[in-house]
Amino acid sequence: MAPPRLYLDWNATAPLHPAARAAIMRAIDVFGNPNSVHGEGRAARAAIEGARRKVAALVGTDAGSVVFTSGATEAANLALTPDFRMGRTPLRLGQLYFSAIEHPAVREGGRFTREKMTEIPVTEAGVVDLDALSRLLDAHDKAAGLPMVAVMLVNNETGIVQPVEAAAKIVHAHGGLFVVDAVQAAGRIALDIEKIGADFLIVSSHKIGGPKGAGALIARGEALMPKPLIQGGGQERGHRSGTQNSLALIGFGAAAEAASDELEARNTTIGALRERLEAGMREAAADVVIHGEGGERVTNTIFFTLPGLKAETGQIAFDLEGVALSAGSACSSGRLGESHVLTAMGRDAKLGALRISLGFSTTEEDIDRAIAAFAKIANRRRSAGEAACPVSKLAETQISACQSG
Amino acid sequence: MAPPRLYLDWNATAPLHPAARAAIMRAIDVFGNPNSVHGEGRAARAAIEGARRKVAALVGTDAGSVVFTSGATEAANLALTPDFRMGRTPLRLGQLYFSAIEHPAVREGGRFTREKMTEIPVTEAGVVDLDALSRLLDAHDKAAGLPMVAVMLVNNETGIVQPVEAAAKIVHAHGGLFVVDAVQAAGRIALDIEKIGADFLIVSSHKIGGPKGAGALIARGEALMPKPLIQGGGQERGHRSGTQNSLALIGFGAAAEAASDELEARNTTIGALRERLEAGMREAAADVVIHGEGGERVTNTIFFTLPGLKAETGQIAFDLEGVALSAGSACSSGRLGESHVLTAMGRDAKLGALRISLGFSTTEEDIDRAIAAFAKIANRRRSAGEAACPVSKLAETQISACQSG
Repeated sequence: MAPPRLYLDWNATAPLHPAARAAIMRAIDVFGNPNSVHGEGRAARAAIEGARRKVAALVGTDAGSVVFTSGATEAANLALTPDFRMGRTPLRLGQLYFSAIEHPAVREGGRFTREKMTEIPVTEAGVVDLDALSRLLDAHDKAAGLPMVAVMLVNNETGIVQPVEAAAKIVHAHGGLFVVDAVQAAGRIALDIEKIGADFLIVSSHKIGGPKGAGALIARGEALMPKPLIQGGGQERGHRSGTQNSLALIGFGAAAEAASDELEARNTTIGALRERLEAGMREAAADVVIHGEGGERVTNTIFFTLPGLKAETGQIAFDLEGVALSAGSACSSGRLGESHVLTAMGRDAKLGALRISLGFSTTEEDIDRAIAAFAKIANRRRSAGEAACPVSKLAETQISACQSG
Repeated sequence: MAPPRLYLDWNATAPLHPAARAAIMRAIDVFGNPNSVHGEGRAARAAIEGARRKVAALVGTDAGSVVFTSGATEAANLALTPDFRMGRTPLRLGQLYFSAIEHPAVREGGRFTREKMTEIPVTEAGVVDLDALSRLLDAHDKAAGLPMVAVMLVNNETGIVQPVEAAAKIVHAHGGLFVVDAVQAAGRIALDIEKIGADFLIVSSHKIGGPKGAGALIARGEALMPKPLIQGGGQERGHRSGTQNSLALIGFGAAAEAASDELEARNTTIGALRERLEAGMREAAADVVIHGEGGERVTNTIFFTLPGLKAETGQIAFDLEGVALSAGSACSSGRLGESHVLTAMGRDAKLGALRISLGFSTTEEDIDRAIAAFAKIANRRRSAGEAACPVSKLAETQISACQSG
């Protein structure tokens, strides 16, 4: 009999929060086109405007600053463009600087061409190198346009919090625009777009317990906006065309509200659970390497390497034990690849790393089951060695898709 | 007491089909990231691949040809680009030719710049002018790249079926790529991408009774594909990044299957209902003008003008009677505008036109109520005249958003 499932991959996606689930169930028959003038349309419009206020509140701003998109990847592609407008006046951005540990949605550079993209290194501690950022911006040639800088608030693999407030000051001292991917931060640390100093924040619904298919690009003002990525009927005040995904947005709003309300309680509970888990892991395998453990991390993430165990092998072994977690090595388009985050941190990326990420419904019993599975796999590693699990064959058949988040 | 609501704006959006609603309810707790390797991810992946097969079947092709997007507008923006790839070889398209009655999602031209966009006129009958298309393509300069042509299969305002098969032959004789917006055709006429001769078809979930937030770009082959619009983790075989909106896609699949299964029955029922409605309308107001009534129309749409009644006024009057329908005049970004479709047909667009569109749950009782509302409004028009309803003031406050579909 297959073991019951234990989901510890919340950074990839979260189960629906009960509030989001209830909101979706209540709204499932609200079907009007939010852009229609009649009663059905106005009802749908009112529902998504309520959601907009809740998403805005999550980052301490007003509803007018929120452009809804189909997700964080689309929001990143919308923000990352050389073509902006200040009111009606075009504004050209010359170069995109992004940290070496950004999510692929940012690393691909949106509408910037390759030669207009520059990577900002990170330190061995997994933190963006601010001195390097300053040097890059000092050398930036404004004749080709202002600089744009993208630094994520929390890394999706390590959970390490990035010094975005300090980065914002550097970027603005150089006259640049600052884009912050807050996907993994939302619901885990308090967000205030003004305090952060981001010109644009990116958030995702399904990482905070909302449904998939919704995200937002949130601007600090409304004066300076990117050229639309998706054009057509002029929805979202012209910034993003296409009928809004009302059901997903309603769920997104409910999840955002819950994330705001429950922030402190979640961190207390989840932080204690992670401590228990890390202690259990160390007891079971003293040689486990927890990446970024010395630095500031969100409370829910453990990114670790077990010497002698390939991450892909480990992921499958955990899955067979009923535990869903993630191999740190990100891949694109179905190919396996080394973790760009480990590489950027100067670690040996050959073994890769595994990511455990907890969420609002994780329990102490879950943690004890996770420790037991960890101990079993760590011990088997010592007794049987790598050859016992033919990862290359498994990888070909089972690992056929891109790891996201 | 407000009258009970009667929804006759199915071309703007459809209520959830019972099969789609049931599929969403069943799948609401399938939350895994379809790109994750573990069991939860594989379950989500299996669900969206099932949906992909159903959407493919709706247009007579294989699942491998379907790229899921957040909707038809995104699919149009993905398809309409000068930058294509034939395998790894870049292929440049030089000019976009689009019919004068396309939806704004196509009319905005996607990633083509204004000077690379040419409108194809339509006849007074509301049909794309194929002679004009031939002349335009004869004059096309291939040195700058191949031509791309976009013609919708069914116009969203008039319901008039366009001669896409004949257009495809002309386009291919000129070595061009042919994109067909089939949003208003899906679920109303049988679709076969090969028979149509489209290189790309665009379909939308929420117009066929699926949820909002899902659409597809369907290719005739997979060799020739547009440069991705949204880049990142490489989902959808690299053609569209971002975690798939699994819940919406599952609903989309169920709606597509129902649309295929029920096509004939729907057309018989809805066709009879429309006849009843048009007869009732003519009896109540002999001067009503039904646009495109002589030509081939889908069975569900009536696009009409009542002399002496502005469309915006009429729309609000019907809404107050509890009837949701649509003013033909499309607007963008909150501005009222004249119907580009009426203008393209050479009609006087000042009054505009109203659109009634029926769907799978419309009943005979609905039709009789619609006739009664129509008669009331048509009679009031004669007795009170236009001045009785201060449309300009209403328009400012109530008509604040873009009409889509």
